[in-house]
Amino acid sequence: RAIKEMVVRGAPAIGAAAAFGLALAGYESRASSAAALLADYQSAAETLKAARPTAVNLAWAMERLLAAASRFAASASAEALRAQMLAEAQKLADEDVEINKRMAAHGAELIADGDTIVHHCNTGALATVDWGTALGVIRTAWEQGKKIHVLVDETRPRLQGARLTAWELEQYGIPYEIISDNMSGHFLWRGDVQKVFFGADRVAANGDVANKIGTYMLALAAHDNGVPVYSVAPTSTIDLTLAHGRLIPIEERDPAEVLNLQLAGERVTPLNAKARNPAFDITPACLLTGIVTENGVAYPWTFSSPVLSPTIIFFLSGAAMAGTTALAWLGTVSRLNFVCSAIVYSVGRLTWKTSDNQFTMPQTRCSLGALITAPMKSRSLSPKYWRFQFGDVGLYVGKVCQIGSIGLGQITLAGSDELV
Amino acid sequence: RAIKEMVVRGAPAIGAAAAFGLALAGYESRASSAAALLADYQSAAETLKAARPTAVNLAWAMERLLAAASRFAASASAEALRAQMLAEAQKLADEDVEINKRMAAHGAELIADGDTIVHHCNTGALATVDWGTALGVIRTAWEQGKKIHVLVDETRPRLQGARLTAWELEQYGIPYEIISDNMSGHFLWRGDVQKVFFGADRVAANGDVANKIGTYMLALAAHDNGVPVYSVAPTSTIDLTLAHGRLIPIEERDPAEVLNLQLAGERVTPLNAKARNPAFDITPACLLTGIVTENGVAYPWTFSSPVLSPTIIFFLSGAAMAGTTALAWLGTVSRLNFVCSAIVYSVGRLTWKTSDNQFTMPQTRCSLGALITAPMKSRSLSPKYWRFQFGDVGLYVGKVCQIGSIGLGQITLAGSDELV
Repeated sequence: RAIKEMVVRGAPAIGAAAAFGLALAGYESRASSAAALLADYQSAAETLKAARPTAVNLAWAMERLLAAASRFAASASAEALRAQMLAEAQKLADEDVEINKRMAAHGAELIADGDTIVHHCNTGALATVDWGTALGVIRTAWEQGKKIHVLVDETRPRLQGARLTAWELEQYGIPYEIISDNMSGHFLWRGDVQKVFFGADRVAANGDVANKIGTYMLALAAHDNGVPVYSVAPTSTIDLTLAHGRLIPIEERDPAEVLNLQLAGERVTPLNAKARNPAFDITPACLLTGIVTENGVAYPWTFSSPVLSPTIIFFLSGAAMAGTTALAWLGTVSRLNFVCSAIVYSVGRLTWKTSDNQFTMPQTRCSLGALITAPMKSRSLSPKYWRFQFGDVGLYVGKVCQIGSIGLGQITLAGSDELV
Repeated sequence: RAIKEMVVRGAPAIGAAAAFGLALAGYESRASSAAALLADYQSAAETLKAARPTAVNLAWAMERLLAAASRFAASASAEALRAQMLAEAQKLADEDVEINKRMAAHGAELIADGDTIVHHCNTGALATVDWGTALGVIRTAWEQGKKIHVLVDETRPRLQGARLTAWELEQYGIPYEIISDNMSGHFLWRGDVQKVFFGADRVAANGDVANKIGTYMLALAAHDNGVPVYSVAPTSTIDLTLAHGRLIPIEERDPAEVLNLQLAGERVTPLNAKARNPAFDITPACLLTGIVTENGVAYPWTFSSPVLSPTIIFFLSGAAMAGTTALAWLGTVSRLNFVCSAIVYSVGRLTWKTSDNQFTMPQTRCSLGALITAPMKSRSLSPKYWRFQFGDVGLYVGKVCQIGSIGLGQITLAGSDELV
């Protein structure tokens, strides 16, 4: 219940809290045999998973604990199983702290002395078990002695930035200023910002990131001004079962969260006003500079040969993308290799790198895609149509966020109603 | 004072209110000769102009009334001059209504039956003398019987959307839903939105638009999803003395407007929290589909020949842009021809159109620019440097918003400290 009402929030904290919740459910169960208790764990896990559809860590934590329960159940009494599940939940929480600190160390390397950083939502100790994801990165950089300044966007409607992140930064003594969500574009445009950091609630196989509403517009503004933008997310947040971001379900919450705003004690909105309240949005992978994980910073595939002509890149990538899409569809891509990376690497011209690389050219890749799709659209194909067109995949190379979804988009369309 | 504290707000309303303010200042003046009264008008106009640096209509209204005062002063008594100035202010206000209705008629043609429209800030009857700019367009489309739905972004920090626009739409019976500013990107990405409309506080000569903070991020999201985005602004808002948006001064207001937010009667931000509060931002012209004026919809220069090869466009435009920049610098561009349009038209390949055109390709133009600038940047030129680099202008063709400013940017740099 606490997870559903966002009392416990932040994707990593949700995973750990749910793990303890599941362990506690075992103590409330009257099952006397390990097998009966296992069944109770399974139904409790389903209930917990349904509470928050967007955060994938919840499902990940439930699966991990259920797998442990299955192992234990074969050889233990119900009482021993209960104790083992509690220990397993504690272990998961401890690992979470450890993972956060490793992410923070990788991310802090990206921050230079004197940087001004825009941070979205709350991703600190209040959102995780102890250290935080994006805010953990900032905190680590600060503790390394880097002089930084944080622009905290307030993160409407729940104001996690103005309430929680501002409070945390105050505790750590890190200088900050609060801005409205719609102001970050202005400061990015003025050249006042050097880095943008946020967390992730779920990362699709192609690198599309679901995160707190407003992340997409922030990433767009950073990308438009050439400012590096990073999502900080443990690998448990990466969901390889979803080929792209349009398959991630977006939770829509109570409109009252938008409407209940007060200024000087007075309600602002008309009494009969309606509102919409999507809690998350999808940031296409092509807008991100990289994703900071506990295993290092994952960058999108980069051009290793600057002399490669656009035409060659065009056809090579087209073939690579088609192959990768098929591969992903066959389910053979391994964990942590995003859909786009596997075959691209084997072509040998485009490489997947995890160390920093000055020649990442995210804008160019996106632009190439736009260059081709815009005339297509003007030939009166509807946007929805060309987005999911199958066949001449090569035409769309470059806009990673779209091409990753084209083939799969059609295939999924036939067998599922999940496609937006 | 009312203008300064945003009691009177909305660029057009400010112009008319200031005109009446100036006329009233005449009645408060003790001057007994027309010449002495004229001097009082001049100093009152300076005071009024200083109240709001971003809205250009204020300066425009003051100049128009002072010009009238100079004409009248030669042949009238002080008393007659006072009456004539009041009549002139009334005339300006009447014309404002007339201009709004013409803009609304032009803009309403862009709205189709069934459209969902995102609207930013308040641009309705509460912001103008009577009819409104962007909201006037929406109102006219509704009165034409088009079934439309408006997503009203709340427009932090002053909440003009949630307070004023929502209230106005309720009066007109137009269906609407309130969203946080950071949500529009999500709905645009989902394909739920067909048009985006907002006003303008000042339009630079190259079409860059200064408007309420948040406009830039909204326009970016619309552009990224291929959704048409229009600024609705009377020609009095166009400031041909400023070559591009970076020369428009941005007012920064009291941080308390950001910090004073309440939820359930409680202050949200930490007690010692600081905040930033820029009231406006700049939307580069290349993100706009068009600017709706009382004389028609102004579109950026469009390609008239789809078979023109990119290379030819590249060099033709480079030459055209260099020429236009020089022309603009010489001050010979006439009112309503944006800097980019004059020579571009004379080249004969790229035309400036005021009627709707399906082949506008805004994305392609921007992309071409990005394609060239990205590798430049990776060769370790700093972003600030290549943005204002002079000389090989042709290299940057395509990103209208940047190229328009390159030559002038350097020239201005030498003689002024206004350049951001």
